[in-house]
Amino acid sequence: MESTNETLQQLGENAQQASYALGLLTSTQKNEVLMAMAAALLAHQDDILAANAQDLENPQVPAKFVDRLTLTSDRIQAMATGLQQVAALPDPIGNVDHAWRNAAGLMIAKERVPLGVIGMIFEARPNVTVDASALCFKAGNAVILRGGKEALHSNQALVQVLQAALTAADVDAHAIQLIQDTSHATAAKFMQLTDYVDVLIPRGSARLIQAVLSQATVPVIETGAGNCHVYVDQAAQLPMATRIIVNGKVQRPSVCNATEKVLIHQAVAAKFLPTIVQALRDQGVEVRGDEATQAIVPDVVPATPADWGTEYNDLIIAIKVVDSEAAAITHINRYNTQHSEAIVTDNYQAGKLFQQRVNAACVYINASTRFTDGFEFGFGAEIGISTQKLHARGPMGLNELTSYKYVIDGNGQIRD
Amino acid sequence: MESTNETLQQLGENAQQASYALGLLTSTQKNEVLMAMAAALLAHQDDILAANAQDLENPQVPAKFVDRLTLTSDRIQAMATGLQQVAALPDPIGNVDHAWRNAAGLMIAKERVPLGVIGMIFEARPNVTVDASALCFKAGNAVILRGGKEALHSNQALVQVLQAALTAADVDAHAIQLIQDTSHATAAKFMQLTDYVDVLIPRGSARLIQAVLSQATVPVIETGAGNCHVYVDQAAQLPMATRIIVNGKVQRPSVCNATEKVLIHQAVAAKFLPTIVQALRDQGVEVRGDEATQAIVPDVVPATPADWGTEYNDLIIAIKVVDSEAAAITHINRYNTQHSEAIVTDNYQAGKLFQQRVNAACVYINASTRFTDGFEFGFGAEIGISTQKLHARGPMGLNELTSYKYVIDGNGQIRD
Repeated sequence: MESTNETLQQLGENAQQASYALGLLTSTQKNEVLMAMAAALLAHQDDILAANAQDLENPQVPAKFVDRLTLTSDRIQAMATGLQQVAALPDPIGNVDHAWRNAAGLMIAKERVPLGVIGMIFEARPNVTVDASALCFKAGNAVILRGGKEALHSNQALVQVLQAALTAADVDAHAIQLIQDTSHATAAKFMQLTDYVDVLIPRGSARLIQAVLSQATVPVIETGAGNCHVYVDQAAQLPMATRIIVNGKVQRPSVCNATEKVLIHQAVAAKFLPTIVQALRDQGVEVRGDEATQAIVPDVVPATPADWGTEYNDLIIAIKVVDSEAAAITHINRYNTQHSEAIVTDNYQAGKLFQQRVNAACVYINASTRFTDGFEFGFGAEIGISTQKLHARGPMGLNELTSYKYVIDGNGQIRD
Repeated sequence: MESTNETLQQLGENAQQASYALGLLTSTQKNEVLMAMAAALLAHQDDILAANAQDLENPQVPAKFVDRLTLTSDRIQAMATGLQQVAALPDPIGNVDHAWRNAAGLMIAKERVPLGVIGMIFEARPNVTVDASALCFKAGNAVILRGGKEALHSNQALVQVLQAALTAADVDAHAIQLIQDTSHATAAKFMQLTDYVDVLIPRGSARLIQAVLSQATVPVIETGAGNCHVYVDQAAQLPMATRIIVNGKVQRPSVCNATEKVLIHQAVAAKFLPTIVQALRDQGVEVRGDEATQAIVPDVVPATPADWGTEYNDLIIAIKVVDSEAAAITHINRYNTQHSEAIVTDNYQAGKLFQQRVNAACVYINASTRFTDGFEFGFGAEIGISTQKLHARGPMGLNELTSYKYVIDGNGQIRD
């Protein structure tokens, strides 16, 4: 149990040492380790399921955590498949973004290198342990994992299997480490381990992410919160708008790229509102509306001011009628979480204006907000969706887990 | 005077509002404003010099600040020339890093956008007020400046001139704002203005930067500290090594890319040490050395353990003899500030190994560390040199003052 500062320091030092060697592994070496990890997970699934059963026996686990905490043979198979998929992805390390010769004749190459040591802070999903470890490792980073206390035994069993695969391949097992002490005090110290941890990536509830942002001195990549809007322009194809809104809300309501709000241009409100409200209700969605919406569909739930800033993550949606595209954009920039926003329109100017003026990681014309996803973007993987502007924005794949260095070749140049 | 939280909030809100409009200006509009600012600085140089004289009359200004604080007609001309040069640089905003069509047929473009609101925290150099404002503005960002109290009148006069040029061009003058209250308490609140400020860039002493890192909740780009090494390999051309070391130390000893330490392979130490010590002393440099160095050149100042981690920023250098390239790399990765490191060698393997294993923003073969600079790199400008791995590393020009958004064009796509 790391209950002291000293032990966390040791964990950090071990991770940093491991990271130096990880940055030098070839893609082939890394891919072989990932394939071996996949095989090891399947070979040790009985141990993993036994550890998971121990976690599930804990009477203090909240009922709502049980599903995400539960491992099955199928879920372990899915983790193994995930490891194999990461092995198949192109390796970003060593790529040269660009290179040029400067005025003094130096050849300057901007080369991708690992970030170094990544701290992952997450809740009760043991699959994050494996997914995050695989992505950090493939990008040449050491990872320190701090999972939720509910999943401790599961995480211990998983990390043990991954570390054994590292050791068998002669790779420093400190490449993947788990913080065993799940106290808040130790988590707080972890967030301030600036000598060893290059970046923290929290994954989970808005509350978790806020806690990390307020306590961390290590740089944080903020992820996850998504209060996503669809704006139905006066030039929208209304059947397309219906499909996009229903898909955005219903296809997977618990995720951050789900559509939470609908803004409708007043010129089409009377025609569109009865249809969209009905289509949403057919899928079991509770529809809330502002006064203008209530005037057209009297039985919607009245929306309160608090609705506009709320991410429901549930089968609830709120609708507001706006008198112009400019009003829609102003509303979005005030209440959104800079995640994903969409306009439905056939008007070229309206679409391009929306993309230019809306402040968000992903801005769509005529498509569902649900596409904001590393796999849908073609990254082949996703460690999270950044809602900040520094370093990475939107879906983060392997490339977003790298930094760069300038590698410079000269032949004796000095400055005048 | 902004002495309260409320006023800082207002400053932040104004900056954020201004930033929305700045992101939409064309390059031509921005360049015209920059040229007008240059003309205005020259037209108002009497006011600026009078304000500067007021700062210099303050008996509390430390003697060592007087030179950097002093403005002259030539220095104002240099600021104006700087503004014109920034106007001439290519505009990064709107560049598309890459674009592709995903599996669902969406066209996804990764487009450069401004960061938003940048907070600059700096000391007594009034030219930073103009340089930083120009670069932030050209990259479409609003800037909030917090300069040192010694330069307050100068900064007020400069910002007044820049704001008048903004207003004359119908651009929101809140694009460039100065915090008038230079108290530490207000600075601390500024560093936590997360609702409005997207990034803080401190420029100045190591003490200033540490203070910002420890107090800020706004993301910080760490800049400046440079404990830079030159490693003289056994396969080095020794006359080239001498030129590179003397240039690195002497050409401008006060800056962060100056060479502070020399590591010499033991195989060439006996031959090289007398030459390099003499060459450095000829330029007035105090040479410190470890025991092995002392054994060869007995009259060097003995180096203490504290020397290896110290950035002198002065005509002082410390030399250590190492028994292998691996020992040199280990020493550098332990004591460096991840800024700039160089090897002098004619051995291909030794050079490439050094570039791969040394953890720093810029790693040179056979060139002076003094080349780590936005102008020398060909960026045409520099807002600072990042020594962190997140977002930007090494010299930061206009491109490093941007973020990106994904602009996505569809024709009705929904997710399966």
